[in-house]
Amino acid sequence: MAQQSDRLDKLHRRFEVKPGSKVKLNRHDPAWAGGSEIPRKTAREGAAAEMDGDLTELARLQELFYADRSRALLVIFQALDAAGKDGTIKHVMTGLNPQGVRVASFKAPSIQELAHTFLWRYTEHLPERGMIGIFNRSYYEEVLVVRVHPEYLVPQQLPAKKFDERFWRGRYEDINAYERHLTRNGTVILKFFLHISKEEQKRRLLERIETPEKNWKFNPADLGERRLWDQYGRAFEEALTATSTKAAPWYIIPADNKWMMRALVASILSAKIQSLKPRAPRLSKPEQAKLAEAREELLRED
Amino acid sequence: MAQQSDRLDKLHRRFEVKPGSKVKLNRHDPAWAGGSEIPRKTAREGAAAEMDGDLTELARLQELFYADRSRALLVIFQALDAAGKDGTIKHVMTGLNPQGVRVASFKAPSIQELAHTFLWRYTEHLPERGMIGIFNRSYYEEVLVVRVHPEYLVPQQLPAKKFDERFWRGRYEDINAYERHLTRNGTVILKFFLHISKEEQKRRLLERIETPEKNWKFNPADLGERRLWDQYGRAFEEALTATSTKAAPWYIIPADNKWMMRALVASILSAKIQSLKPRAPRLSKPEQAKLAEAREELLRED
Repeated sequence: MAQQSDRLDKLHRRFEVKPGSKVKLNRHDPAWAGGSEIPRKTAREGAAAEMDGDLTELARLQELFYADRSRALLVIFQALDAAGKDGTIKHVMTGLNPQGVRVASFKAPSIQELAHTFLWRYTEHLPERGMIGIFNRSYYEEVLVVRVHPEYLVPQQLPAKKFDERFWRGRYEDINAYERHLTRNGTVILKFFLHISKEEQKRRLLERIETPEKNWKFNPADLGERRLWDQYGRAFEEALTATSTKAAPWYIIPADNKWMMRALVASILSAKIQSLKPRAPRLSKPEQAKLAEAREELLRED
Repeated sequence: MAQQSDRLDKLHRRFEVKPGSKVKLNRHDPAWAGGSEIPRKTAREGAAAEMDGDLTELARLQELFYADRSRALLVIFQALDAAGKDGTIKHVMTGLNPQGVRVASFKAPSIQELAHTFLWRYTEHLPERGMIGIFNRSYYEEVLVVRVHPEYLVPQQLPAKKFDERFWRGRYEDINAYERHLTRNGTVILKFFLHISKEEQKRRLLERIETPEKNWKFNPADLGERRLWDQYGRAFEEALTATSTKAAPWYIIPADNKWMMRALVASILSAKIQSLKPRAPRLSKPEQAKLAEAREELLRED
């Protein structure tokens, strides 16, 4: 058991962005499938088996986490188009009791939202204690898509005059302070960057175009973003470097193999909740006395 | 297939409150388990098998419902304490993709909420198109617990001087108009009253008291509400009578057997979504042309 947990710990740390380290995406293989020493078929079967175990364990842990209500869990997913955010959320979270999970998917902000600070519209969707809140995209868009498209800053009507390095460093600092505040007050944060290769994205986009039932998932605007591949890469490298902290670490998850991506996310999530040791609340002495009284009253009824 | 669906239709109608009919709860057996002609064991095994099928079907239908995005589905659960709202939500909804389901549980209103109209705080949680919104308790509390405890009306500071029949008829009318507005604008509504017997509630409350791991679920205040059993019964009878409409019907689900309650809710829910014939959106000609262009661009890349 301890050996198993050491092995997982080591595996998970492999994908964690160490606070203070500089992220270079070309050092992270999006097609990683267990390492060259493990045959692909073995890796895939192993991942599937572990995934089954992790999902069962996750459902059990969630029950306790919900009953405990001493922490909230915020899980953030960021990725380029077609990397598999929706599919990962579906496969990893479907076995959970929906009463304890809430998914928030963020699209383009409304005019009212743009008139607020850039963190405002996300705050409403933060999970309360006992809940797992999943952000499908998040305030990180404000230093990713907005960084690649600085013209999106115009309707935000900010006091800043120039959108230079200093401006973006300010946003990273704001985000780190926001997450520090959340963790200090009982929210545990996990952040997943689903890392897909340019080749694999092309394959998946073509699949959406060529499979009639998947057509509705294809957004022609995705192609425009794909042309900005390198700019996005740099924006991700900078953001991950600046905002991976001990309390709210980033994980760079290889996303070219869906089975590996899902198995890793399930495993990291399950280990994180496990580490919090959630347990059903125990009653205090006076509360127990009230219970005994209530029992008497019920039994006296007839 | 058609026979199967006829059989289910008949079964479901058995539990539906016909619009305009007068509800008498003592005519509804909370312990119903398939009728006297079916042995209990057979009924239970049959219900389990159908439940499995319904949950698989529900997951498939939800996928399409979410992709379709032409309707929203609001599912309301009301019941006395320990009737099984949480457990039913857990068992029926756990297999669904959490991206398309949102559960809202309503507790006592805040001071800010009390300063609004009685429907206000529920409106924020209504599901948008494509989503299944589950209300664990709802605005019906405003004609149930509030009817039994009219003192809860005091902090609402209403213009009404007397809380007489006319006042409550006004609330039913407001609720019916609200639901009519929702259905007219694309929200489909299903309402479940989980109907438990007084004996079975006693058994479940004692179980919570006598099982240490379940202690935290027991609220000593539940006993006070239990003393008002008959008043609650009358409030439910009136509310169900006044607010079961063709567009938003109430179902009175026998709740003494958890397996029967869950199987019926899953079956009615599944049949309802089925009847909406959800399907993945098809693209228009100009959209298809855009797809073809995008394909060309991707293939030209290398």
